[in-house]
Amino acid sequence: MAEYNSQPLILAAQEFAKLPGIGLKTAQRLAYYILNAPEEEVEQFATGILEARRSMRICRCCQNICSDDECEICSSVRRDKSVICVVESPKDVSAIERSGGFSGVYHVLHGLLSPVNGIGPEQIKIRELMARLSSAEEVIMATSPTVEGEATASYISRMIKQMGIKVTRLAYGLPAGASLEYADDITLQRALENRNEI
Amino acid sequence: MAEYNSQPLILAAQEFAKLPGIGLKTAQRLAYYILNAPEEEVEQFATGILEARRSMRICRCCQNICSDDECEICSSVRRDKSVICVVESPKDVSAIERSGGFSGVYHVLHGLLSPVNGIGPEQIKIRELMARLSSAEEVIMATSPTVEGEATASYISRMIKQMGIKVTRLAYGLPAGASLEYADDITLQRALENRNEI
Repeated sequence: MAEYNSQPLILAAQEFAKLPGIGLKTAQRLAYYILNAPEEEVEQFATGILEARRSMRICRCCQNICSDDECEICSSVRRDKSVICVVESPKDVSAIERSGGFSGVYHVLHGLLSPVNGIGPEQIKIRELMARLSSAEEVIMATSPTVEGEATASYISRMIKQMGIKVTRLAYGLPAGASLEYADDITLQRALENRNEI
Repeated sequence: MAEYNSQPLILAAQEFAKLPGIGLKTAQRLAYYILNAPEEEVEQFATGILEARRSMRICRCCQNICSDDECEICSSVRRDKSVICVVESPKDVSAIERSGGFSGVYHVLHGLLSPVNGIGPEQIKIRELMARLSSAEEVIMATSPTVEGEATASYISRMIKQMGIKVTRLAYGLPAGASLEYADDITLQRALENRNEI
């Protein structure tokens, strides 16, 4: 039942299969596409990826991915530097920016505390956060409402509160458009606890 | 609602989004992975893909993708060169080899006739097939049972029959393990027409 595939197809498929979420079948499909594409196009693809990786910098202030020493948000005069929103990853910055509801600056932790996986405070960008709090008036903990997100938020907020800076957490509740019927118990409990007067 | 993403992330995502079946979300996820991977790993990925494309040759005999002038199957002494199985793409060679039911050689058309999309006999490897028929005793048309697959099979078989060579077509019928209840009308009709005595 060994599969017959030509050597170039196997080589290209092996590379694609290294990417997360790309299974064997998809890798073969992509490999097949690459082998049928003009060589210049494949060159452009390969160098494009490599250039993107090489041009990547980490913002010295918020630790987000950027192409300079400082990111666009940190260097913008229109952003409120006294409010810092702490998130797990650059994807979260992108999500909050998309919502349009935030005018402060960010801090990207590049991970969450996870003792089981050997990720302690030294493995994520907590030290860098502490070092930039001198002018901060509020720190919003915007990690996900998961076990690790909660643990990271409470660990960091304890340290920041000791410095006398206000720390807040994203609100819990029902997501917009959700059906009450299908909400899980914890979400419903929290939505009740955090109910607002209308 | 403009999305904020750093320049390197956008660049890498744009490259991935060029691949077939990779949407914007997946492209961003892959780009994010690439930016977080060690630079050597990204180099290996980029050069691996490019090397695979550059090392690709087309077998001078069967037109399949390979890494030499002639593919493993065409250069094998154990394959019966008098039986040629005509398929649409290298993937089909791989599928038939996996079934283990064929000991002849292949001919890869690299496409199917499709006048609507401007693909005529000159755009696929029909000329190359005609040029290698001198020692052929049987040509098996193994294109898919689709409109274009059928049209291509009938176009080619007409030409080959004129040369006095036997032409056959893959059998139609119910797929193994299929439920009769869910078989479509055309498949059932053909399974009835091509019924065998047991």
